[in-house]
Amino acid sequence: MRIFVTGGTFDKEYNELDGKLFFKDTHLHEMLELGRCKVNLDIRTLMMVDSLEMTDSDRQIILDHCKRAKEEKIVITHGTDTMEVTARVLGETIRNQTIVLTGAMIPYKFGSSDGLFNLGSALAFVQTLPHGVYIAMNGKCFRWDNVRKNKRTGTFEELK
Amino acid sequence: MRIFVTGGTFDKEYNELDGKLFFKDTHLHEMLELGRCKVNLDIRTLMMVDSLEMTDSDRQIILDHCKRAKEEKIVITHGTDTMEVTARVLGETIRNQTIVLTGAMIPYKFGSSDGLFNLGSALAFVQTLPHGVYIAMNGKCFRWDNVRKNKRTGTFEELK
Amino acid sequence: MRIFVTGGTFDKEYNELDGKLFFKDTHLHEMLELGRCKVNLDIRTLMMVDSLEMTDSDRQIILDHCKRAKEEKIVITHGTDTMEVTARVLGETIRNQTIVLTGAMIPYKFGSSDGLFNLGSALAFVQTLPHGVYIAMNGKCFRWDNVRKNKRTGTFEELK
Amino acid sequence: MRIFVTGGTFDKEYNELDGKLFFKDTHLHEMLELGRCKVNLDIRTLMMVDSLEMTDSDRQIILDHCKRAKEEKIVITHGTDTMEVTARVLGETIRNQTIVLTGAMIPYKFGSSDGLFNLGSALAFVQTLPHGVYIAMNGKCFRWDNVRKNKRTGTFEELK
Repeated sequence: MRIFVTGGTFDKEYNELDGKLFFKDTHLHEMLELGRCKVNLDIRTLMMVDSLEMTDSDRQIILDHCKRAKEEKIVITHGTDTMEVTARVLGETIRNQTIVLTGAMIPYKFGSSDGLFNLGSALAFVQTLPHGVYIAMNGKCFRWDNVRKNKRTGTFEELK
Repeated sequence: MRIFVTGGTFDKEYNELDGKLFFKDTHLHEMLELGRCKVNLDIRTLMMVDSLEMTDSDRQIILDHCKRAKEEKIVITHGTDTMEVTARVLGETIRNQTIVLTGAMIPYKFGSSDGLFNLGSALAFVQTLPHGVYIAMNGKCFRWDNVRKNKRTGTFEELK
Repeated sequence: MRIFVTGGTFDKEYNELDGKLFFKDTHLHEMLELGRCKVNLDIRTLMMVDSLEMTDSDRQIILDHCKRAKEEKIVITHGTDTMEVTARVLGETIRNQTIVLTGAMIPYKFGSSDGLFNLGSALAFVQTLPHGVYIAMNGKCFRWDNVRKNKRTGTFEELK
Repeated sequence: MRIFVTGGTFDKEYNELDGKLFFKDTHLHEMLELGRCKVNLDIRTLMMVDSLEMTDSDRQIILDHCKRAKEEKIVITHGTDTMEVTARVLGETIRNQTIVLTGAMIPYKFGSSDGLFNLGSALAFVQTLPHGVYIAMNGKCFRWDNVRKNKRTGTFEELK
């Protein structure tokens, strides 16, 4: 199984000197250790960006890495704001793999993050769902062509 | 979906006055809120025991509640030491339901628990796996008749 | 003893919806409870501002509240960026009170904050130091007329 | 300034394999780093015991180390159950030093500990109080000959 890291709230840190949020390294290894995760995982950081700043070419890079990956099961950590856009880019092309995008509303380093819960559910969904592209958030799993983030509540929901 | 709480490390607290660990209320509501879980869940506490002290009649109570539940999908939080025993009791009888047992190695209240990760994965596995009884720990899922806790490492593994 | 809350990193929260930091209520009550603090304290929020945005008239408000307070010992929670400026305004006027300003480099809600440590030290310094105005940060205590924040390291130091 | 570590709830850890609490290394360095403490400190672990199991000869060892220390200011981390006994042993002998004992009701590793708050206050009290032996708990400071732990409430109070 493979995990691609792209950034997002998941991995944001607080800069003590200027009070701003920023990216350094991914916390994924630390989170998997905290979860005592024993699944065989190959983690690779593709980028470290806020998903509001993710470009079309960033999404092509993600798509290329998924297509070239020899693994059939892939989890992608991603900012929640445009997670549905990346899911659509992947969903329209990917055929013989199960890909689950997940993220967090609160940075992991802030101590009360939903990230660990979402990561646990994403790793479970990717092991059990049929080929396709999905978003795992809030304990639920959505197909790429039937999901949006409700900007007002911050939760994910089906289109219809 | 339904969650039955039976105690276990998950819900242990630290007594400031005598320095011992004890059970008070379940932290499941708090954990689901932290995980921003939006799955429709009916939570019921059946007992609050250390799984080393769980008796045969305790396991019959759990089995009865599962059989009488109208929900097809059930998650059970349980101490890890005898989780495999309860899974076997359920596995030999349950037919038309998907039941996932999960737990934690570190109490949730201790701030660096694997519980949130396991809960996320258990809720995902129960939504996607076929009827049967399973244990979800360490990011993995095991069938009730092919799992044991390795007492030395504290992790779960297949029998063969 | 009295505590005046003015905001600062201490009390910043993370907004899940837009990913920005903001002020809501002070976490001081929660922090004092966590510290099992049994000192008799009267807490009052004067404002909730980032200290970079604190104006001269804000500082006059703080000074007025200190002068009008019947308590001889006062702790003020304050953003670190201009803590030395407010300390100077108070220090040039206050005569018969002990006032200790303190703050944090990391928001309390982020789980790994220096705030609890600083609060503990500020409450101890205010109980034991002679009349005057002080800044308590990094386990140390500085007189108002001999302190600056080193912007590069984020720590406080004496002028000479 | 010097810190002597003797164990106590402060430094207890949770053993995942048998669910018991135990001592490994002190967390003091980690706590001081979290508190961004910049005080010059020399930390030395004298023992790692539950204070209920501390013997008379353990207390002599602590006393000897205090007397032989060249530092005038010493903080001692100690279990709360017999903190007053050790304070008395030191108080009856120590003359030209300021010694502050402190501890925690909740282990530091459990994520919601009073330890960081108490450590901050102890380090401040030791810098400002006249020679003598004190206990710093709950934001307060008690002289060695006028303090007891109220076993029912878990807080420290004056004898009269």
